Amino acid sequence: MHAYRTHNCAQLTQDAVGETVRLSGWVHKKRDHGGVLFVDLRDHYGITQIVADEDSPALPVLEKLKLESVVTIDGGVKARDAVAVNPNLPTGEIEVFARSVTVQSRAEDLPLIVNSAEDYPEETRLKYRFIDLRRERVHANIMLRNRVITSLRGRMIDQGFTEFQTPILGASSPEGARDYLVPSRLHPGRFYALPQAPQMFKQLLMVAGFDRYFQIAPCFRDEDLRADRSPEFYQLDFEMSFVTQEDVFNTIEPVLAGVFEEFAGDKSVTPAGEFPRIPYAEAILKYGTDKPDLRNPVLISDVGAHFEKSGFGLFEKIVGGGGTVRAIPAPGTNEKSRKFFDEMNDWARKEGFAGLGYVTRKSGEFGGPIAKNHGTEGMEKLYAELGLGENDGLFFAAGKEKDAARLAGAARTRVGETLGLIEEGAFKFCWIVDFPMFEYDEDLKKVDFSHNPFSMPQGEMEALETKDPLDILAWQYDIVCNGYELSSGAIRNHRPDIMYKAFEVAGYSKEEVDANFSGMIEAFKLGAPPHGGSAPGIDRIVMLLADEPNIREVIAFPLNQRAQDLMMGAPSAVSPAQLRDVHIRLTEQPKADPAEQVRTDNIGE
Amino acid sequence: MHAYRTHNCAQLTQDAVGETVRLSGWVHKKRDHGGVLFVDLRDHYGITQIVADEDSPALPVLEKLKLESVVTIDGGVKARDAVAVNPNLPTGEIEVFARSVTVQSRAEDLPLIVNSAEDYPEETRLKYRFIDLRRERVHANIMLRNRVITSLRGRMIDQGFTEFQTPILGASSPEGARDYLVPSRLHPGRFYALPQAPQMFKQLLMVAGFDRYFQIAPCFRDEDLRADRSPEFYQLDFEMSFVTQEDVFNTIEPVLAGVFEEFAGDKSVTPAGEFPRIPYAEAILKYGTDKPDLRNPVLISDVGAHFEKSGFGLFEKIVGGGGTVRAIPAPGTNEKSRKFFDEMNDWARKEGFAGLGYVTRKSGEFGGPIAKNHGTEGMEKLYAELGLGENDGLFFAAGKEKDAARLAGAARTRVGETLGLIEEGAFKFCWIVDFPMFEYDEDLKKVDFSHNPFSMPQGEMEALETKDPLDILAWQYDIVCNGYELSSGAIRNHRPDIMYKAFEVAGYSKEEVDANFSGMIEAFKLGAPPHGGSAPGIDRIVMLLADEPNIREVIAFPLNQRAQDLMMGAPSAVSPAQLRDVHIRLTEQPKADPAEQVRTDNIGE
Repeated sequence: MHAYRTHNCAQLTQDAVGETVRLSGWVHKKRDHGGVLFVDLRDHYGITQIVADEDSPALPVLEKLKLESVVTIDGGVKARDAVAVNPNLPTGEIEVFARSVTVQSRAEDLPLIVNSAEDYPEETRLKYRFIDLRRERVHANIMLRNRVITSLRGRMIDQGFTEFQTPILGASSPEGARDYLVPSRLHPGRFYALPQAPQMFKQLLMVAGFDRYFQIAPCFRDEDLRADRSPEFYQLDFEMSFVTQEDVFNTIEPVLAGVFEEFAGDKSVTPAGEFPRIPYAEAILKYGTDKPDLRNPVLISDVGAHFEKSGFGLFEKIVGGGGTVRAIPAPGTNEKSRKFFDEMNDWARKEGFAGLGYVTRKSGEFGGPIAKNHGTEGMEKLYAELGLGENDGLFFAAGKEKDAARLAGAARTRVGETLGLIEEGAFKFCWIVDFPMFEYDEDLKKVDFSHNPFSMPQGEMEALETKDPLDILAWQYDIVCNGYELSSGAIRNHRPDIMYKAFEVAGYSKEEVDANFSGMIEAFKLGAPPHGGSAPGIDRIVMLLADEPNIREVIAFPLNQRAQDLMMGAPSAVSPAQLRDVHIRLTEQPKADPAEQVRTDNIGE
Repeated sequence: MHAYRTHNCAQLTQDAVGETVRLSGWVHKKRDHGGVLFVDLRDHYGITQIVADEDSPALPVLEKLKLESVVTIDGGVKARDAVAVNPNLPTGEIEVFARSVTVQSRAEDLPLIVNSAEDYPEETRLKYRFIDLRRERVHANIMLRNRVITSLRGRMIDQGFTEFQTPILGASSPEGARDYLVPSRLHPGRFYALPQAPQMFKQLLMVAGFDRYFQIAPCFRDEDLRADRSPEFYQLDFEMSFVTQEDVFNTIEPVLAGVFEEFAGDKSVTPAGEFPRIPYAEAILKYGTDKPDLRNPVLISDVGAHFEKSGFGLFEKIVGGGGTVRAIPAPGTNEKSRKFFDEMNDWARKEGFAGLGYVTRKSGEFGGPIAKNHGTEGMEKLYAELGLGENDGLFFAAGKEKDAARLAGAARTRVGETLGLIEEGAFKFCWIVDFPMFEYDEDLKKVDFSHNPFSMPQGEMEALETKDPLDILAWQYDIVCNGYELSSGAIRNHRPDIMYKAFEVAGYSKEEVDANFSGMIEAFKLGAPPHGGSAPGIDRIVMLLADEPNIREVIAFPLNQRAQDLMMGAPSAVSPAQLRDVHIRLTEQPKADPAEQVRTDNIGE
């Protein structure tokens, strides 16, 4: 018989009744029924009920053991009485009568209870993460994460991608987010940096001729932390050669839809091949954002034309002054009181906007000052155009186009949430496409890149030479799911001539470009294929699938919000010799810190 | 038609003759046959021959293009003339007549030639790694690496393992190799460290109840570099709960044997289930090392007993003084001159040993001073015992046991290599087991741990309490292939009581243990399963399979031997603001460095 187990704790069923078995696991729960002790024995796979009565030499041992002790049980499988069968447990039809027990590890009192869903402060949970990870939900989240990643890998390989490892000890770059630095011992005064993303390396892999790269890539950004940010995070980083934007979409939709379908349970998922492509301008108009949550059925419309001449002078003035009016329907609000509408207006003011106008409608009758001033006829025309009914309210966001769009987007979300319109149980994907290549920078009074200078402009050289820069679109795209941006991506500009020209349009000389981006441009001068890619955030994908609002719930050993590992005591003070080795000195001595209390061991092999 | 290709450069065969196709790739080679130009068009997948004659508008364009330019060719597939068929190429039966060409990227002059196997200085190769990676052998090595890793992953999952990600921003530990440090911005004076291995985390995952962990784990050691060492390397890190040593072996043998069989080509591989288990003591005796190359058939024997009384006074004296004599056969050396034997002796002296004695034998007749003094009868008895024949020579390594074993091991390797006895075309695996738990430290005049203090002693507490420490073995094991150690591993000591006792035997108090290793011990007090694992080196595995002597040949973007990335310019000087952010100052200004010449770009998304 095996030293520790013949079966795991999820395996035994009715078929095993009468067998002699050995199980090992944690003492999850104990119930003492006066002379008969029931123990839920738990391992990674499940739970099996152990019974010990006064005939069992295991009874006195098990009675005394604390929860979470690790034991090996030798015993016989018995059918449970019908009344005791637990249909929710794979092993619910049987129990194991303990003939003997071996204590593998005697647990002391625990800082948190494993067998309950009780909430503990994050500090306790992270300091004792190895206990916290035993709890059902956290355990399930981490296993979900692991399975999602394995599934992503398999799906990428099925699409012809190969996984590479790119360097983690990389070069620092002054642009972008803040780098984590690593002082060099061999090169005094010099530093490596941890990669914010393997962007350069993946493009160089394309230049090197590898056709389809991917990596479950660790990325590092030393930014201030939020619930959905970790200093260390993972991207499904990928890049492809000889592709158009549509090729990228058609390749990745099956991967994303596939993994979501696999792990979404009952929720619906936008099928591969059917992710809507929404041009950036349309997204800003209809959703007031480039990260639209398509589960929200509310659509924004531009209704400025209706107010060019209106009894409602404020809107007339705004439209006349080049501004715009956006309308956000609030369907079926006939039963809502004025308070509902006024509170939306208050909310908008609190968010820093001038206010959110509105029209109420009840059995066809309009209410509110805008309707009154604009007139019933005008309102009916507007409603007819928007396809709204006789019990639908309507909000208005008016002002400069950018502000109006932003307010309309926020109002759309709030209307959807408040009225319970968001479709639950769905993952709705879309691509946002046709981002403008350039924008007018109001502060600098000049044209500048609006997003990524390294994306290929649509129309390439000809567009740069002939079109108004503000009309040029880029082969750049975002993947959005339920209002969350999973990733940006682009078809890259692989042509030095087009690169110099794009920078020229934005007011940068060839010399400036060479001084700042020579590495990539020099590589492109030695034979570069057209290529493009993206890098969906994996932690974000798992958060969506696990329905968790905090990234730390889907990372096995996360740093806390102050970027500390309370369990291992990182970051920690280091010895003067360690600092000397890497040629640095502190400008400030470390403060005493609770993280220090836990010692770091080194027991590597 | 697709914008860039209807087929890749390895797809077209006889079946496609007559089709109109579009191919994209690099201009690998050009041959001008007076008015007819042949171009080898290369992509990731293969090579297709393009033809352009004076009827083709592509001719003048292709004629002028430099090698490694990227083009898209539109053309028709034609069968090659029988005489021009290339059976070594999947596309060798056809060629594509170019009707038009689009230049995607015009290459300038190259720093290294892609289509030749010419050797370049490593500095050139690494600075232009994106060109170097296009060359056939490097390209193949990196793809081999990627495929090996994918295969390892699949095989681990088949064995019931789940892949986890453990933190890269970890805690520094004073023991072990030198850490790479990362200064903290939020916690002045404190540092993260990059993991030398995820040892603590994987053990904590076992304590957390995850049953079978693995990770293709990036590891970092700031050590001085050698051909087989990189600051950043990868391990197949794994750990299992509720297992014995044999369970670990039986689980991992199919993974290692499987991946080697998959990628070893014609070479033979020790089958899973047949990896010999060689006790450490036996390995030291028979092979003179705990990393034996089993392809070498030469076996060492202890022959001290033969020299207790011998006409050869030196050996008699050594044996009498507690030393030992080890014999290394040199089979079939009857035709070898004295010079061969003397040179072995010279080599041993150069290596710092006292010398390597020998006996020659030719048609049964012994030669050399040892044979002469020891006498023919004694020599014949010795030869009979060792099973040696009448044309076999014999070397002797004599001295203190440790030295004699080491010399014998080195001589065995040299004999095997010099006589061409090493079996080519084989990967021979073994486990080295039964490492001693303790050893006598001659300098400190005390018993100390011989390898890893955290391995479980065989016999556990009882052994520690009752046995001579120097007789206690550990559940510790190495995986060795062809003389290379792929990994150490162990069944861990998961019992605080046994841990304290083991340290006590080695002379450490409970307080000292608590002061240094409390993290792990405290975790073990809260319910820890028996567990064990190992971490075979992935770069080493790929080096063996690729038959490359240098680790940098199997890493896509390696640092050079001075730990620099010449392509991206790492490590680099950073801005004073970056240093201020993380509360450090330089003790030495960076020297001017060629690595600086290449600028680092940041084009992340």
